[in-house]
Amino acid sequence: MKLSIIVIGDEILLGQVTDTNSGAIARTFDPLGWQVASVSTVGDDPRVISDAVNRTFDSSDFVITTGGLGPTKDDITKTVLMENFGGHLEYDESVAENIRRVFALRGLKLNASTEAQAMVPSSCRVIQNLYGTAPIMWFERDGKVLVSMPGVPFETEGMLPEVARQAIQHYQSELRLMHRSAMVTGITESALSERLEDYERNLAPGLHLAYLPTPGLIRLRLDGQAKATDTEFEQVFNLAFEKLRDELGDYLIYDGDATAAEILLDMLRRHGLTVATAESCTGGSIASRITAIAGASDVYAGSVVSYSNDVKNRALGVAADDLATYGAVSRPVVEQMARGVCRLTGARCSMATSGIAGPGGGTPEKPVGTVWMAWCVDGRVESREFHFPGNRARVIDRAATEAMLQLVNQIRNHE
Amino acid sequence: MKLSIIVIGDEILLGQVTDTNSGAIARTFDPLGWQVASVSTVGDDPRVISDAVNRTFDSSDFVITTGGLGPTKDDITKTVLMENFGGHLEYDESVAENIRRVFALRGLKLNASTEAQAMVPSSCRVIQNLYGTAPIMWFERDGKVLVSMPGVPFETEGMLPEVARQAIQHYQSELRLMHRSAMVTGITESALSERLEDYERNLAPGLHLAYLPTPGLIRLRLDGQAKATDTEFEQVFNLAFEKLRDELGDYLIYDGDATAAEILLDMLRRHGLTVATAESCTGGSIASRITAIAGASDVYAGSVVSYSNDVKNRALGVAADDLATYGAVSRPVVEQMARGVCRLTGARCSMATSGIAGPGGGTPEKPVGTVWMAWCVDGRVESREFHFPGNRARVIDRAATEAMLQLVNQIRNHE
Repeated sequence: MKLSIIVIGDEILLGQVTDTNSGAIARTFDPLGWQVASVSTVGDDPRVISDAVNRTFDSSDFVITTGGLGPTKDDITKTVLMENFGGHLEYDESVAENIRRVFALRGLKLNASTEAQAMVPSSCRVIQNLYGTAPIMWFERDGKVLVSMPGVPFETEGMLPEVARQAIQHYQSELRLMHRSAMVTGITESALSERLEDYERNLAPGLHLAYLPTPGLIRLRLDGQAKATDTEFEQVFNLAFEKLRDELGDYLIYDGDATAAEILLDMLRRHGLTVATAESCTGGSIASRITAIAGASDVYAGSVVSYSNDVKNRALGVAADDLATYGAVSRPVVEQMARGVCRLTGARCSMATSGIAGPGGGTPEKPVGTVWMAWCVDGRVESREFHFPGNRARVIDRAATEAMLQLVNQIRNHE
Repeated sequence: MKLSIIVIGDEILLGQVTDTNSGAIARTFDPLGWQVASVSTVGDDPRVISDAVNRTFDSSDFVITTGGLGPTKDDITKTVLMENFGGHLEYDESVAENIRRVFALRGLKLNASTEAQAMVPSSCRVIQNLYGTAPIMWFERDGKVLVSMPGVPFETEGMLPEVARQAIQHYQSELRLMHRSAMVTGITESALSERLEDYERNLAPGLHLAYLPTPGLIRLRLDGQAKATDTEFEQVFNLAFEKLRDELGDYLIYDGDATAAEILLDMLRRHGLTVATAESCTGGSIASRITAIAGASDVYAGSVVSYSNDVKNRALGVAADDLATYGAVSRPVVEQMARGVCRLTGARCSMATSGIAGPGGGTPEKPVGTVWMAWCVDGRVESREFHFPGNRARVIDRAATEAMLQLVNQIRNHE
């Protein structure tokens, strides 16, 4: 099955909002063995939307559009779809009922432009949107389907399982696609590709290895594609993945697809440890990445974001003398931060960061990108200086990732 | 000028990585008055890439591709472009020199697959990549241009100003596009559109109002489009924006395009105030959003992420009795958190959050999405209970935004 996605909205096209819907749709359908053929992003221009719909519908089995359905005047998708699939606007009581339900839930007052959402093309079948007011519209022609979903990520992500269920019901999958990931750290992408050259050359037909580098962490994904009738393919695929694990050795930090924070939480849980963070330059980024994961409170005690020297001293007990003598970005300070936050929170592990994220604040001795880090595991403290390239966001992101992955290694070595 | 973007990579198509390059490109060229016509995302499939290049090149004046240039085997863009624009691969000493420079800077060892990046199509002109090893390639045909840029956002964002400079040199802009934004809060999108109905109906030709809602904050963008020769258009546009400000009244929280954190920092600076945060359910998210902004240290003292009750008590001085009697998600606790973090950090303002982000932890009295917040401004404490819809990420995001915007209002009312 060939799936194409059309993302509609000037705000996406102009780069004011980053599209995450297409990724969510791909992540839903890809594991089902559907082939995501293309994503097209278009603005709120009826002619351009219409062209994209025609072109994409012809070359795909299934099309999902997102966006262009809100109650405001810059929404035109409904009209364009009606031009393509026929029919006229008619009032749908079930949609109106859903709109009233959503508004009551949010304690809001109905108004005319919201009620206009209850008018839907007679040529579509409605899938009720449980997460918002814009109806999801299912159009069919020549046995192929176009589904129009909302632009709000929360609504589209919420309704994707139901849309996928109905899509599977409508079609039969012919191809079997498999994916499995391994997370790798401590090696560059190019050194890794040299190391795996023989492995890749000897992969069985239908298997392919993809490199997906992120700052500090490379995701390797083994992709497999075979006919649904090929019953032995799963075994071939799994053996190839086992061999990949062997080739990676210690560079393999996690078997599966995971973020640095997920890898750390997994390691802490397996060792029955708890962790706290003392963040200066990373400014709460480590804390927020850890607490974004449901259930983090099992192992995460808390954080002190000690942006000022005063807080480093008062909350974490860093000696004022050391702050004056060595500066905030120094080994003695991060080591005291790491110990201090363990003392304050009672956690058995901790990590501490202090650095110059930029763009200002750099000196010849400590240029922008300099970050000192310390880790504490059951009272044993290690520390290290890093130099990260790039702008502020990149330095913060990279430092947060590195702090977590290094702690994973510390705990692994501590075993 | 009509600009089209092609994003290349299985990892984007399959939703494993979110594309941010197309947004960065649009944000660079849109203010120059170029029309971003479309964004196409395609996988690492030579035939599909080739089709997208042909189709897009024909219908645009300028095409930028990103991705498909790394040193690993799943990169094929170079070959496809050579099939489209002719030429053969040849060794480019300036590219090799740049690769050696980047590797030396990062303290890495060269290897064969990296050196292969120095082979470039003879049909292109190279723009040296100052942020990485993959060369930026400029192809021309019939006076039109295709530029191939890397997939790594840091490299593409870094090199965009130079690519834009050369693009402007190559073309002359004919159209004049203008944009100006206003940030609005405290009103729903549909109520806002009713309020602005007359305003929108009476807009002069070439003007258009777009609604860009994000959780808790609506960006209104006035778009204008006129011939470059129309010298009076700028005045018409500015008058229309002034009128929009008047229509918005107190709902206007910021004149321009800004995040909640930027609006808060601006307000703090204008009042000479400092702020600290005490975060439970938002888990460092407020801190990281504030410290992501360069220069935040002027007004930001720090944060305590008090994920456990123990930390709420020990670091922030929340009474253990109150934690036991009222629970962590309660008015007395957030009020003590807000006061405690001011005391600890010496900041004049603070905000505190405690809630149930889910998916677990909800009760009939305090369901998932319940968040208590308190704000302290010069010793005066206000607090309020919120109920946010959605999953964990959405509750955290919405709570962080609301905490900051409410503090902006508190300071505004305090005037």
